[in-house]
Amino acid sequence: MTAAKRCGRLFVIGLGPGDARFLTAEAQQALSAAQYVIGYAPYVARVPVTPGQTRLASDNRVEIARAEEALRLSASGSDVAVVSGGDPGIFAMAAAVLEAIDNGDPAWRDLDIEILPGISAMQAAAARLGAPLGHDFCVISLSDNLKPWEVIANRLELAARADFVMAFYNPASRARPQRIHDTFALLRRVLPADRIVVFAKSVGRAEENIAIATLGDADPSVVDMSTLVLIGASGTKLVSRENAPPFVYTSRKAI
Amino acid sequence: MTAAKRCGRLFVIGLGPGDARFLTAEAQQALSAAQYVIGYAPYVARVPVTPGQTRLASDNRVEIARAEEALRLSASGSDVAVVSGGDPGIFAMAAAVLEAIDNGDPAWRDLDIEILPGISAMQAAAARLGAPLGHDFCVISLSDNLKPWEVIANRLELAARADFVMAFYNPASRARPQRIHDTFALLRRVLPADRIVVFAKSVGRAEENIAIATLGDADPSVVDMSTLVLIGASGTKLVSRENAPPFVYTSRKAI
Repeated sequence: MTAAKRCGRLFVIGLGPGDARFLTAEAQQALSAAQYVIGYAPYVARVPVTPGQTRLASDNRVEIARAEEALRLSASGSDVAVVSGGDPGIFAMAAAVLEAIDNGDPAWRDLDIEILPGISAMQAAAARLGAPLGHDFCVISLSDNLKPWEVIANRLELAARADFVMAFYNPASRARPQRIHDTFALLRRVLPADRIVVFAKSVGRAEENIAIATLGDADPSVVDMSTLVLIGASGTKLVSRENAPPFVYTSRKAI
Repeated sequence: MTAAKRCGRLFVIGLGPGDARFLTAEAQQALSAAQYVIGYAPYVARVPVTPGQTRLASDNRVEIARAEEALRLSASGSDVAVVSGGDPGIFAMAAAVLEAIDNGDPAWRDLDIEILPGISAMQAAAARLGAPLGHDFCVISLSDNLKPWEVIANRLELAARADFVMAFYNPASRARPQRIHDTFALLRRVLPADRIVVFAKSVGRAEENIAIATLGDADPSVVDMSTLVLIGASGTKLVSRENAPPFVYTSRKAI
C-alpha cells in the first residue's frame, strides 16, 4: 500500500479592522493552527506569534503571487493561513486566491480551502457612527488599477441616481490621488449638497479619526488609503448629542 | 453630595449568521456581562445562558417597541444587550435603535451606547462560495413593508445597469411571496440569462443549503426569508471542482 500524498489546508482569514476584539472564534483558532501565515506585511504583523509558525510578509499589489505561494505550500502538505484585514471576501485576498486557482495548476481546485469571513472596515465604521448602512447600500472600489475609470464613473452615477448609501474602498493612493476628487465632482453634479458624508480613518485602531460633513462642504483631500468614505442616501440622518459627535443612521423608511 | 443617577450601558450586538464560531471576541464579552438580553426570539435563543441574566424574547416586526424597551431599561440603570442575527448595522436592530432615539426621549441621546458589528449573512454565504463579493456590489432589501415597490424596482434596474453584484435581504415572506418573482422578472428583462444566481439558505446552520444556477434557469419559488439571494455581475465566474460544488468568484478586473 502506498501512502496517499497529504495535502494541507488553506485558510483565507479575515482579521477585521485592526483590534483583536473584532476577531471571530474560528479565525482565532485557524490562525494558531496554521504552519504558515502569509499576507501583506501590516496584516501579518497583527497576527499573534505562534512558536514554530513561519510568517511570510509581502508587499502590497502582489496579491496573485502571494495567493500562488499559499496554494503551492498547501498542495505540498502544509496548513496555510492567508490573512487579510477586514473581510477577505470584500476587496481582499479571497478573490485573488480564486483567480489564482482559476488560472493555475488544475490540482489546486481540489485543495481543502476554507474562507473565514471577518468584520469589514465599512461595518466597523458604521458601528462607530450608528447605523448608516441600515438601508440599501453599495460598495465600490475607486481604484482604476484593474478597471477603466469610465466604468467606475458610470457606476457612481447610477448608484447616486438609485439613492444608495455608498461606501468607497481604495479611495486614494499616492499613485492615484485624483480619483477621490473626480468622484466628489461627479457626485456634486448628481446629488444635493446637503447629503451626509463621512470620512472614517483607521477605524478600530489607535489613530482612528471620524469626520462628518456634507457633500457640499467635505474636503476630499484629507482622504487616504486607510479612509473609508461613506456617502449618505436621502434617508441618512444625524441625531445630535450633548457630549459626543452626532449619530448617523439611515432610516429604514428611506425613499 | 447627591449620588449621580447611574445609567446603564446599551450594547447592540451582532451574533453572526448562526454558529458561535462567527462571534467576535467583543460580542462574546458583552453578551456575558449584560443584565438583560433583548431580541427577536430565535436570536435570543442562540445566546448562551448566563445565570442572573433576564432574557426578553419578542416577535418579529416589533423592532421599534423592542428598541424603546431596551433604551428605557438602560436609562434606568441596567446593562442591556440588544441582539441581532448577522450584523446589527445591516438591515437589523441598530437602525431601529437609532430611529427610536431620534423620535423618543431626548435623554436617550446621551446614553452610553455601543454597536458591536457581526458577520452578516452575505459574508458567510460569500465565504462558503468563494469570493462572489470580491468586486463592487450592492445590498438591497426586497421588503416593501416600509417603502413602495416602485422605489425598489427602480433601484434594482439601476443596480443591474451599473453591473453590480447584488445581494438581496428579506427576499420573500408568507405575507409577500410575490416580490422575489417580480424581481426576477425585472432582472430577466435587463440582464443576460447566463448571469450566475445563488440561493444560500440558512448559511452557518445545520439546515444550510446552497444552490447555484443562472438567471435564466433559477426558480425563485424556493426562496424564503432565511435565503440570501446573490445575483452575479458580468465578472462573476464559476471554477469547477472534482469533488465539490464549483467556487463562485467575481474577478477584480470586472467590467
